[in-house]
Amino acid sequence: MTMTTLPIQVQLTETKKPKPDSETLEFGRVFTDHMFIADYTEGQGWHDHRIVPYAPLSLDPASIIFHYGQTVFEGLKAYSSEDGVIRLFRPEENMKRMNLSSDRLCMPQIDEELALSGLLQLIEIDKDWIPNAEGTSLYIRPFIISTEKFLGVAPSRSYRFMIILSPVGSYYKEGIHPIKIKVESDYVRAVSGGTGTAKTAGNYASALKAQQVADAQGYSQVLWLDGVERKYVEEVGSMNIFFKINGEIITPAVNGSILEGITRKSILELLRHWEFPVTERKVSMDEISSAYENGQLEEIFGTGTAAVISPVGELNWKGEKMVVNNMEIGALSKKIYDTLTGIQTGKVKDPFDWVIELNQNLVKQL
Amino acid sequence: MTMTTLPIQVQLTETKKPKPDSETLEFGRVFTDHMFIADYTEGQGWHDHRIVPYAPLSLDPASIIFHYGQTVFEGLKAYSSEDGVIRLFRPEENMKRMNLSSDRLCMPQIDEELALSGLLQLIEIDKDWIPNAEGTSLYIRPFIISTEKFLGVAPSRSYRFMIILSPVGSYYKEGIHPIKIKVESDYVRAVSGGTGTAKTAGNYASALKAQQVADAQGYSQVLWLDGVERKYVEEVGSMNIFFKINGEIITPAVNGSILEGITRKSILELLRHWEFPVTERKVSMDEISSAYENGQLEEIFGTGTAAVISPVGELNWKGEKMVVNNMEIGALSKKIYDTLTGIQTGKVKDPFDWVIELNQNLVKQL
Repeated sequence: MTMTTLPIQVQLTETKKPKPDSETLEFGRVFTDHMFIADYTEGQGWHDHRIVPYAPLSLDPASIIFHYGQTVFEGLKAYSSEDGVIRLFRPEENMKRMNLSSDRLCMPQIDEELALSGLLQLIEIDKDWIPNAEGTSLYIRPFIISTEKFLGVAPSRSYRFMIILSPVGSYYKEGIHPIKIKVESDYVRAVSGGTGTAKTAGNYASALKAQQVADAQGYSQVLWLDGVERKYVEEVGSMNIFFKINGEIITPAVNGSILEGITRKSILELLRHWEFPVTERKVSMDEISSAYENGQLEEIFGTGTAAVISPVGELNWKGEKMVVNNMEIGALSKKIYDTLTGIQTGKVKDPFDWVIELNQNLVKQL
Repeated sequence: MTMTTLPIQVQLTETKKPKPDSETLEFGRVFTDHMFIADYTEGQGWHDHRIVPYAPLSLDPASIIFHYGQTVFEGLKAYSSEDGVIRLFRPEENMKRMNLSSDRLCMPQIDEELALSGLLQLIEIDKDWIPNAEGTSLYIRPFIISTEKFLGVAPSRSYRFMIILSPVGSYYKEGIHPIKIKVESDYVRAVSGGTGTAKTAGNYASALKAQQVADAQGYSQVLWLDGVERKYVEEVGSMNIFFKINGEIITPAVNGSILEGITRKSILELLRHWEFPVTERKVSMDEISSAYENGQLEEIFGTGTAAVISPVGELNWKGEKMVVNNMEIGALSKKIYDTLTGIQTGKVKDPFDWVIELNQNLVKQL
């Protein structure tokens, strides 16, 4: 990957914040010293790309973001390893997806190369914030908000693109324990024709209620079904989902309502590289239930940036409890987890050219 | 209606802004001198209710509102009339609905009386901003945003409730002209199990795309169909919809995906008061098309706070163009419009006790 040198103004902070303890880090509560910003104005395009000290935003109360939710975001991670190299996992895929999301939300396209260049410079500046403890990483949140001061329901004529960074703890501090999932019968995440394929705020706001109900019933996530027939599997929480049934891996096909995860895509590529039988298609809960009864439901796991692999140990479908692999992580789930996290941290060879090594790239461009 | 006296701190501005010309006012671009604010903190509840000078908000870039869209809003109007009385139309219904929306979005309930009291005080302070020209009004926007600095997908532990005011021009500056509507076949606004019944940002963000496509085809709004069978009528743009077929008024029944409009509700009450035949039920596009072919499709109109009544002159369903009432406003549509706007501005007697007269109420409470 080549990067063009582009004009990003840099203003460094004069008061560096104390860094948190790597061992006690949570998710998404602490942010680094700087942030990347670019502004968009209709007729002018994106302008004033800059890295500045992390600080509050000042926005008019009538800004469209507060009322009509015209916004998109992304999530990815940078990893610091024993070899001193900082690695990013397929960041160009995030920038590409952000543009797809923006298109659905009637928002302007970003220059993906420039955004990536800004991200790499930002990480270089705040690299001391990348935690070192096993499983920790620097979470990266690019997002675009609509900033026009207008209460009419119409696409904004101005936007702000930002990237903020947050050192985050290990998702599996106490080892990988499979989670218990409730199959959601009342609430729907998304329907074909809606915004389910876009990474946009409204999808997450609407999911809170089902999550709250499931929590109270002792389930840590919900499994979403399609909004039309309420029988086909879509996603689990905010992850994609994979089933291992009778020696084959099956994941719901991209259908206009599920989010096309980058971890999902990478796992499909990895499985095909291994020549492991894998299919993308519709998967109904009836099929899952039958496979369970026949003893063929071997493994279930969610996939996403935060956990990489999140094994599912129990599925509750209208009161029917299916216990998967004795509530233990499956052998294939474990192998995928080890391989992907190994590639991300440089411990396993990357045959796909997925990883960007930060230092190397900065040498090229700065 | 009685109001309790409650402690709302008031800080008046020292620099009043110039007021816009009533004749050239647009919608939602100009705001008054003050705003109402209350803050919510988990464990403490709502606190610091205050009226302060209108000013930008300062929010951390990691605030939940920017990422996951946990927010609700309302829209209503205050009218200034020749008799010098300021009137509000059923504002308690807006506060009630805001709490219903908040429940769907896992947000805390507001004290409806206190919010209404704050609104009335705010209007009293900024009453010189209420425009006088025919058809103009003061648009009122209550909204609640999630303010916790956290990237986890979970309900926020802090919120800000605000009310801002905007003097707005007449919706029908050049008389009432029926609009052309495209029946939407590709995009879906909401589905049962989603957030369609809540007044929340994501519903509006997701609607932008279909609106943009319709605009380009010469249609000013889209008519949304249900997301499951794609055959039943839901809403038009961000309005509810009514059909007059063979002497009867029919509107889609509340079904878990349409917004329960206050104008919709008022029109149903008005029609029943008139003993006009009216039904809330499922309405399919096939039925509308048949009625059109039989010459029984007499009137169509959208209903909402902005336009009150928006007559539909043409419906385009998959290329079939149905021209309604020769592109002229129907007699019943006109009668409903005149009655409702008459009640709102005090020109027509209000037999329903819908209108709150501001001055009277403030005497009671201040």
